[in-house]
Amino acid sequence: MKSNINSVNALINCFTKLPGVGFKTAERYAYSVINGTAEDAQAFSNAIMNAKANVRFCSVCGNFTDSNTCDVCDSRSSATVICVVSYPKDVIAIEKSGGFKGKYHVLHGALSPLENKGVDDLNLKSLMQRLNNEKVTEVIVATNPDVTGEATATLIAHLIKPLSIKVTRLAQGLSLGTNLEYADEVTLSRAITNRTEL
Amino acid sequence: MKSNINSVNALINCFTKLPGVGFKTAERYAYSVINGTAEDAQAFSNAIMNAKANVRFCSVCGNFTDSNTCDVCDSRSSATVICVVSYPKDVIAIEKSGGFKGKYHVLHGALSPLENKGVDDLNLKSLMQRLNNEKVTEVIVATNPDVTGEATATLIAHLIKPLSIKVTRLAQGLSLGTNLEYADEVTLSRAITNRTEL
Repeated sequence: MKSNINSVNALINCFTKLPGVGFKTAERYAYSVINGTAEDAQAFSNAIMNAKANVRFCSVCGNFTDSNTCDVCDSRSSATVICVVSYPKDVIAIEKSGGFKGKYHVLHGALSPLENKGVDDLNLKSLMQRLNNEKVTEVIVATNPDVTGEATATLIAHLIKPLSIKVTRLAQGLSLGTNLEYADEVTLSRAITNRTEL
Repeated sequence: MKSNINSVNALINCFTKLPGVGFKTAERYAYSVINGTAEDAQAFSNAIMNAKANVRFCSVCGNFTDSNTCDVCDSRSSATVICVVSYPKDVIAIEKSGGFKGKYHVLHGALSPLENKGVDDLNLKSLMQRLNNEKVTEVIVATNPDVTGEATATLIAHLIKPLSIKVTRLAQGLSLGTNLEYADEVTLSRAITNRTEL
């Protein structure tokens, strides 16, 4: 049974549209908003509208930005390595790791016949243009190590090969803190194949 | 590291204020809003403002409502049993169970010295007024079966005793589907004490 109050139901309904949020959790979020201060509610409401209105895609790399080009493109214009990722959130994940100081290119998806996502649905044309126009020495393909990500990586490698630019893929192996006996077979097999010298 | 875009950060920050939402989850919610349609964002933003602006407490029982009195008070004015709960969400939980057709009274909290919640912070005065003015045959105390809820139940029983109105407490025992060997000692001991005849 739903609550009898329309404005609460409308809010709960909005929260259930968030990823991984069911009715119970949405209810909890809605009560938290209602029990909070009017200022917090106003700030929340404005933040949603501002984020939706201001955030667009960088005209160069496709990352999130609130101006024409993103901060990474602006601050690393001399970098010669491009890291290709599926989504803007992957850029943030890699930036957090601190292990990369080059530029990015965001595909906004991965090849997925099941979801009707083909070559033309990815932000690939502008990548090829960048490879022709910018000085690029290496492309790191950082799509996810799953079926769609691997397929996308193979496609990109195939497209870039003729330009004689080095194409690399993120290393696959054991995660830090993993227990050998619980690692899945494919990961373990790749960890053996890609073993490094000590 | 945070994302470099202020409007995204502001939205992530708002989401982290929801109960049980950390930075990663807030990030995921924010991206979902940004990737959604402008209509959805607008609806979400409006729902927050409407809920905060319209939802108030029923002048009789303290439940959520968007008019002066709540739907339960309006539709069950002849009921003579009052169920006392801690929060408006408990009303919805009991209504969902379908096991109760009486009225409610919402305390908006429970006795909790640690959180500085004393007798005066609970919606008790209006409960005593209702017991004097309405025809009430029984008060069911449905506060949570934890330390603060039990303390509140004891207090209410103590207050109502002089009015010679029957005061009951929700049954405590095994949950449906529990395994005896995993039930905690207190629950099991209460289930034995409160055993029912077959």
